[in-house]
Amino acid sequence: MSQDKKLVEAITSRNEDFAQWYTDIVRKADLADYSSVRGCMVIRPYGYAIWENIQKNLDQRFKETGHENVYMPMFIPESLLQKEKDHVEGFAPEVAWVTHGGEEMLTERLCVRPTSETLFCEHYANIIHSYRDLPKLYNQWCSVVRWEKTTRPFLRTLEFLWQEGHTAHATAEEAQEETIRMLNVYADFCEKVLAIPVIKGQKTEKEKFAGAKATYTIESLMHDGKALQSGTSHNFGDGFARAFNIQYTDRNNKLQYVHQTSWGVTTRLLGALIMVHGDDNGLVLPPEVAPVQVIVVPVQQHKEGVLDKAYEIKNIISKVARVGTDDSDKMPGWKFSEHEMRGVPLRLEIGPKDIEKNQCVLVRRDTNEKLFVSLDEIVEKVPQVLSAIQTDLLEKARAMRDQKTYAAKNMDEFKTICENTPGFIKAMWCGDQACEDKVKEITGATARCIPFEQDKISDTCVCCGNDAKHMVFWGKAY
Amino acid sequence: MSQDKKLVEAITSRNEDFAQWYTDIVRKADLADYSSVRGCMVIRPYGYAIWENIQKNLDQRFKETGHENVYMPMFIPESLLQKEKDHVEGFAPEVAWVTHGGEEMLTERLCVRPTSETLFCEHYANIIHSYRDLPKLYNQWCSVVRWEKTTRPFLRTLEFLWQEGHTAHATAEEAQEETIRMLNVYADFCEKVLAIPVIKGQKTEKEKFAGAKATYTIESLMHDGKALQSGTSHNFGDGFARAFNIQYTDRNNKLQYVHQTSWGVTTRLLGALIMVHGDDNGLVLPPEVAPVQVIVVPVQQHKEGVLDKAYEIKNIISKVARVGTDDSDKMPGWKFSEHEMRGVPLRLEIGPKDIEKNQCVLVRRDTNEKLFVSLDEIVEKVPQVLSAIQTDLLEKARAMRDQKTYAAKNMDEFKTICENTPGFIKAMWCGDQACEDKVKEITGATARCIPFEQDKISDTCVCCGNDAKHMVFWGKAY
Repeated sequence: MSQDKKLVEAITSRNEDFAQWYTDIVRKADLADYSSVRGCMVIRPYGYAIWENIQKNLDQRFKETGHENVYMPMFIPESLLQKEKDHVEGFAPEVAWVTHGGEEMLTERLCVRPTSETLFCEHYANIIHSYRDLPKLYNQWCSVVRWEKTTRPFLRTLEFLWQEGHTAHATAEEAQEETIRMLNVYADFCEKVLAIPVIKGQKTEKEKFAGAKATYTIESLMHDGKALQSGTSHNFGDGFARAFNIQYTDRNNKLQYVHQTSWGVTTRLLGALIMVHGDDNGLVLPPEVAPVQVIVVPVQQHKEGVLDKAYEIKNIISKVARVGTDDSDKMPGWKFSEHEMRGVPLRLEIGPKDIEKNQCVLVRRDTNEKLFVSLDEIVEKVPQVLSAIQTDLLEKARAMRDQKTYAAKNMDEFKTICENTPGFIKAMWCGDQACEDKVKEITGATARCIPFEQDKISDTCVCCGNDAKHMVFWGKAY
Repeated sequence: MSQDKKLVEAITSRNEDFAQWYTDIVRKADLADYSSVRGCMVIRPYGYAIWENIQKNLDQRFKETGHENVYMPMFIPESLLQKEKDHVEGFAPEVAWVTHGGEEMLTERLCVRPTSETLFCEHYANIIHSYRDLPKLYNQWCSVVRWEKTTRPFLRTLEFLWQEGHTAHATAEEAQEETIRMLNVYADFCEKVLAIPVIKGQKTEKEKFAGAKATYTIESLMHDGKALQSGTSHNFGDGFARAFNIQYTDRNNKLQYVHQTSWGVTTRLLGALIMVHGDDNGLVLPPEVAPVQVIVVPVQQHKEGVLDKAYEIKNIISKVARVGTDDSDKMPGWKFSEHEMRGVPLRLEIGPKDIEKNQCVLVRRDTNEKLFVSLDEIVEKVPQVLSAIQTDLLEKARAMRDQKTYAAKNMDEFKTICENTPGFIKAMWCGDQACEDKVKEITGATARCIPFEQDKISDTCVCCGNDAKHMVFWGKAY
């Protein structure tokens, strides 16, 4: 069919030019568009609907774990940003500054929030007085701004959407529990909903968040062998509490500092969905987040009864899945390509011959597999197939990741892998930042995390040969 | 009970000092807190939960009327803001300007969006080509910034949350239909969900939105007799389309400009909820938007079986309403006052004597009415009472508004009403802006709207005495 060839040809092949393939999908699947503001994107309805599904699912998980949503101002006075030393050093070089309101110059510059620790801390100092006020388990959905030099839709933009959890606890133990609890919420969400397997672990001192005592991360692997930091959870200890004087009276009437955490995921998860599951025909969406899970495409729709049957089937399926009908006047092949490009998990074809046989054809986006199903069974069959797609996508992604995960005992092996077979590299580390820096200098790879599940690749640091402390996942990252 | 007296005394009486009473409720009901950024507020969990209920309900109405959500950048380059002449004149004096990104001065200033017409127009010019691309029915949930001189929580803040619908249509008729459709959605939402009756009408030329052909509004009346513009819907005609060159090829292959609309409501609706329904004991929430509809308060909870019964009742009610249990160690009277302050529509008291009689006590927040209900009937009774509260609040608000709506035939009557009995004033108008200006100069009242439902108060303009064109709702406004 010439028309769908034309459409498919419009995307660059994934193996030919991964970056261009990515950009092509962003545009052709109607996920985002450029705007006249450098590095800022328009999130289009289809992209935003995926984000809404992500939000809905995560928000429910946050509420089930006792969190409440709030909204903080988008501006931070310069003096407030400067209260925690490490934090301001990390963020000040990359914030946008508001200097004028209306016609007037401001007496103090305001930055557009790059993250909201300082605002939450100021508020917590106001409202936390007694142990009865703890814990405070707050979350915020908003947009933040970081003045990046180079940007790519979803992966790195000047402005992005995210959620930021900020909690305050009576004890260090509770803060640590919360930090890990939310990391696990993220990991479970990524695997069950996005069908993206993740490595859970701790960031090195060099890679941790500005102002944190410890940063934990979930790291996923993209199809080109590059890593993507997909979510982080930070334990702040009482560092911010001391800087902002957030104290409470404990049960013994003694003043104590609170212990805090923060954790966040962003719209870059849409980038992960593209780069983990997508193929040369476009986006491939896991059913759990797909705005449309099943698209009914009538074949020879001008023939009597075909469109009516398509609507009838749509109505039946609407009870068990998010379903649409494409009754536009385009050719079926063209429609097939369009919905493939948009990653709709399941296509349902129905034509005159199918109607005669009281059947329809289900075509899986992920495998192209065709299933002939009796119309009497679709209401059972569709959820089964969607569920199989969800499971299979995760397994496929896990197999891809495992296949692209290598072990290196020394720098020669490390370099060879980096140059020839990009992916995760498991290698031992002495714990010294000098070695971490040197690995990056030589190979471009960074320490993605010290995973919770430790293997022993060898006894000695891959870089200096001294005794190893940890096994680290290394990789080039987005 | 001394403790709840103490709490109640902490609020100013509504009749004594309405402005202070308002501020007291905002603080004591935990709706919002101040921040160190002038004019920006922290929306606290309880306030945000009300906003989430507003969002959920409106978002469903938008989707049912065919709209899709998108996300536009928060920044607008100065040159883009200037493309539509009336629009930039209206907004430029009150925007926040970003002049620096990181360490660098920007070559062009960016304003933080005060509203997003210009961004939507730029995007529409990119994506609309043919009549097949129309209509575009987009909506955005976000925050916007307007550099106001004086601010009050929810009513007027530098930053506020809102939704802004932006649509593009093939014809002027379709754009007008959409404008009125969304005004009706807002009106229905206000009455059915917020229990706030509204006057629907058109703004005068003087009061219309910067860049609009016509602005429609819903106006509500607060308990102090001041009006609140509660939502607006604008028909832009093809003015923005001409400025941004948004054209499409029609069925006859001719180039045409699109016709556009926009419409929005904001977090000021929380201000309306306070000022329409609140009383000297605090907030009064309509059940439809109340985060907690029923609070179960155990009495003598240390006695055996009381707490268990309270939890049991909570579980039963949770199937039909949003319900909480207050099992804190505070005195019951203190708890009563707290939940009254937060406007919880229905309190359920359960103590040892009630348990003996297999009953509980329901207390309505709006009327203080006590109902003794058998525990076997609560699952039916609670939704009935909640529904009655919802209906009664609307009727009470309507009666209050009607009572505070006056008619004036001449300026003497108009002035007398303004000075002695603040409220809506129905009076005739010749349509001349000079009269509109003069009424404001003399009385401080502005034309709230030319209502769709016209009465005839007299034959002549209340100001100049010439032939009247319209009956206008006038009032002092927030």
